[in-house]
Amino acid sequence: MSLRIVVLVSGEGTNLQALIDGVHGQGGIEIVGVAASRPEAPGLERARRAEIPAACFEIADFADRDARDGALGDWIEGQSAELVVLAGWMQLLSRGLVERLAGAIINVHPALLPAFPGLHAIEQAIAHGVKVAGVTVHFVDEGVDSGPIILQRAFDLPYAASVERIEEIVHGIEHELLPRAVRLIAKRAVRRDPKNPRVVLIEEEHESG
Amino acid sequence: MSLRIVVLVSGEGTNLQALIDGVHGQGGIEIVGVAASRPEAPGLERARRAEIPAACFEIADFADRDARDGALGDWIEGQSAELVVLAGWMQLLSRGLVERLAGAIINVHPALLPAFPGLHAIEQAIAHGVKVAGVTVHFVDEGVDSGPIILQRAFDLPYAASVERIEEIVHGIEHELLPRAVRLIAKRAVRRDPKNPRVVLIEEEHESG
Repeated sequence: MSLRIVVLVSGEGTNLQALIDGVHGQGGIEIVGVAASRPEAPGLERARRAEIPAACFEIADFADRDARDGALGDWIEGQSAELVVLAGWMQLLSRGLVERLAGAIINVHPALLPAFPGLHAIEQAIAHGVKVAGVTVHFVDEGVDSGPIILQRAFDLPYAASVERIEEIVHGIEHELLPRAVRLIAKRAVRRDPKNPRVVLIEEEHESG
Repeated sequence: MSLRIVVLVSGEGTNLQALIDGVHGQGGIEIVGVAASRPEAPGLERARRAEIPAACFEIADFADRDARDGALGDWIEGQSAELVVLAGWMQLLSRGLVERLAGAIINVHPALLPAFPGLHAIEQAIAHGVKVAGVTVHFVDEGVDSGPIILQRAFDLPYAASVERIEEIVHGIEHELLPRAVRLIAKRAVRRDPKNPRVVLIEEEHESG
């Protein structure tokens, strides 16, 4: 198996770090680039420490988002990436870039989609009073967190836990689920159900790790 | 603890049976009536076998749904019920009846709300391609499956399972979760968070059974 991936980050980059630690350079998976939406994103420094090519694509440096996404798409193509991973990328991608990368972008979202798409998903879930929360890794389509679901994991919302504690649990699950999804894709074990393209079939149910 | 409950059914009544077997006559909880939305509902026969007063309130027998719900509300009041449990009741209740029973109606729904409200929730979840499904017990408000959540339980959707197998798992969880919610309410362990009435606080976390 082999897979060249580009990771997009906006913030801390802890999911990027989980990918660097958990899949980069292992079993043919290589992170060939990290792009950030803002120059202060600590994720850029994590990339540099791991000697991964890093670049910043801030909308302010371009005429508009479409122009930025065009340049970003060119850069991704230049790295010969086969998969783009949104790991805390906080901006909507333009329709053009999503179409250009069709079927080869995944995202990790801190909720059990289709519940609580969009920003502040954990806070949304807490305010709604759910008793079960979770994490979703999904393909990115033109909508907001609406693409086909690859992996999900649920957890019981701890009684009277602080938002910070719940975020900690969510992030812990993200740091397992996202590398797992990348490994499954690298093994070519992930495919769409020909009968319903919303349904993602995982061929190896007992993938280790 | 004590609690007089009325159970509303439309179909098989397996959740009613779980309540008859799991809570009726135990620890002060009494099912004081079962009402069905149609005369053929097998739930009515289950009630009669358990010697519980049973009645049918079919819309066709009334001028309209409001009239039916008025009569149903009178009947519920006549049984001195403190809690109404929708256990496979397939019809929307009129706003008037929901307001009349304010805060004292619960429902069991075969999905992890707020995902997949309404009819055919299991089929909706499968068609959406979720990897985690579940069951919710919630208070009923004026919306469709939109009221405050009391209990939820998730399960990993088995790979390539038939709809029938998934329904079996869901019903198994329903048959545990609904009696558990009724027991918690009987113990007065369920209350709304004064800071956010959408959030339901469960005072006894380690309730047995």
